[in-house]
Amino acid sequence: MNLEIVRPCRYRDGAFELLDQTLLPHEEKWLRLTHPDEVIEAISMLRIRGAPAIGVAGAYAMVLAAGDAEAVRAAAPRIAAARPTAVNLEWAVNRQLRVLENAPPDTPRAALEAEAARIRDEDEASCRAIGRHGATLLTSPARVLTHCNAGSLATAGYGTALGVIYAAVEDGKQVSVWADETRPLLQGARLTVWELRRAGVDVTLVADSVAATLFAAGRVDAVVVGADRIARNGDVANKIGTYAVAVLAQVHGVPFYVAAPLSTIDLDCPAGSDIPIEERGAHEVTDGFGVSTAPTGTSVYAPAFDVTPAAYVDAIITEVGVIRPVSTEAIAAAFAAT
Amino acid sequence: MNLEIVRPCRYRDGAFELLDQTLLPHEEKWLRLTHPDEVIEAISMLRIRGAPAIGVAGAYAMVLAAGDAEAVRAAAPRIAAARPTAVNLEWAVNRQLRVLENAPPDTPRAALEAEAARIRDEDEASCRAIGRHGATLLTSPARVLTHCNAGSLATAGYGTALGVIYAAVEDGKQVSVWADETRPLLQGARLTVWELRRAGVDVTLVADSVAATLFAAGRVDAVVVGADRIARNGDVANKIGTYAVAVLAQVHGVPFYVAAPLSTIDLDCPAGSDIPIEERGAHEVTDGFGVSTAPTGTSVYAPAFDVTPAAYVDAIITEVGVIRPVSTEAIAAAFAAT
Repeated sequence: MNLEIVRPCRYRDGAFELLDQTLLPHEEKWLRLTHPDEVIEAISMLRIRGAPAIGVAGAYAMVLAAGDAEAVRAAAPRIAAARPTAVNLEWAVNRQLRVLENAPPDTPRAALEAEAARIRDEDEASCRAIGRHGATLLTSPARVLTHCNAGSLATAGYGTALGVIYAAVEDGKQVSVWADETRPLLQGARLTVWELRRAGVDVTLVADSVAATLFAAGRVDAVVVGADRIARNGDVANKIGTYAVAVLAQVHGVPFYVAAPLSTIDLDCPAGSDIPIEERGAHEVTDGFGVSTAPTGTSVYAPAFDVTPAAYVDAIITEVGVIRPVSTEAIAAAFAAT
Repeated sequence: MNLEIVRPCRYRDGAFELLDQTLLPHEEKWLRLTHPDEVIEAISMLRIRGAPAIGVAGAYAMVLAAGDAEAVRAAAPRIAAARPTAVNLEWAVNRQLRVLENAPPDTPRAALEAEAARIRDEDEASCRAIGRHGATLLTSPARVLTHCNAGSLATAGYGTALGVIYAAVEDGKQVSVWADETRPLLQGARLTVWELRRAGVDVTLVADSVAATLFAAGRVDAVVVGADRIARNGDVANKIGTYAVAVLAQVHGVPFYVAAPLSTIDLDCPAGSDIPIEERGAHEVTDGFGVSTAPTGTSVYAPAFDVTPAAYVDAIITEVGVIRPVSTEAIAAAFAAT
């Protein structure tokens, strides 16, 4: 069976179009962007988010910057810096910079368009391969807990963590999902629940703090999450709250899997402590969705990501196979095999 | 130094008055209740909440039910059932039922009023004693993480977990507080931050999922939380999310303390698995504070409390002293000493 799975962006008639994810689940509005600054705004405002998806967005921002090669090169640092944690953004910008080296300097746009399409198509193909490899790790029936949204909305299509779930369902496995709501921006409630329901996958929403109770009650068979950046030793930066889930999974004997393409693994980054962690504004915690729920002037600490040490990660599911156990050597071997 | 600490309720001119906590932090509205059904409504809607405070409210609901002794007895089961998890509610109702045995059957109200005032005064005195005992466990400076609101707002005044913090500050210790926001109803953001700021105590708000990152970074010296019911073996039912904090504290070597009066310990309850756990409606998760943040019709699992096994509790701080290590025998000994 093939599920109907939404894609979060497309390139059409010279414009990068994206589904504004800040308006989900109640409004499905497509934005038509024609200037790189509009893409940078969309990335920094989380209209498009998820490491692979913002890689694709960054690649198209480079397309929209052309102009000549000089204009594209000038735009590159700003595009790469739109958000700091996900490595895919810098990676995609660097791929486009390499394309420039062989493209006609006055008219590089067609070459950049072709590379952006390759990045997009490779990402969706990677997700489908991640799904196939990851699905073999799930029992049937399986009750899978996920955090944030590492779904089709976070990628060019199909998803990483949710790709594993989609592939298992397409294989005929019975999978039900616990979706952490994922404070403060509620990507679990707004995005994961929305896309899973749309695809017809059974999903139940829980506050982030309920996961521990589910583990204690033996109601979770596996955890699958995505990643924003993975260090070469296997430490994983992902949405704030992931580390807590990983610790609780290990304490309760539940396997914890990270699904991510090799492009999310940063071989230049030795360990999780070297990954820059974005801090978000206080208002995302105190004034969620237009309602003030804390005293005016409240001090807030709001890191957007946390780091899960490799020791808590049972496997990294990539497009080239399952890396297990997770170690510097196993990760290097996965790259060497490509 | 004495801090200025708010009280959440009072009895005046034949009415039970309470600060409507659902409207905090931005509106301070006192409700004047004269009928027990109004108190039941206030308890079930969380206008007043916290195990000791709803014990006081239950005692005054019994006052408002008089009438004659028969009318009070008839109202008792409904009052006791207004919320299921906190044992203090049933405990306070039972105290009033015993008062009825010796009160004039046609005019029991004065006797009930006197007992309700005793329950209220004893609770505040208990909180101050809990504070004194607990303050000795905190270093100076101390960075203390708390979950939900076990403050003056949750008691007759002064608080249990926050009572420990107030007492330490009044002793001259330097204490800063990390307040978990406590989804779904944000008692941490709305109530704990409000009352600590009002008392002049340094507080920083975090999403619940940030606590793990704080532990990993060595930025928490102790956890202090309250309790809704403690089984006689030391298992603790408290606000959903407490169990996750307890596990994470233990994994990171941070002491985890529960502050509660003996009235919260249910000697008739052998273990945490015997404590009834209230489930709340889906809308508290999907439609927080009037904004819908999940697809219409989303399935939700929303337990209001969880159970932390005694093995994760380093000490229970009571009005008669610190119970440590936590065990059936140590709890029995604390009761025997009273």
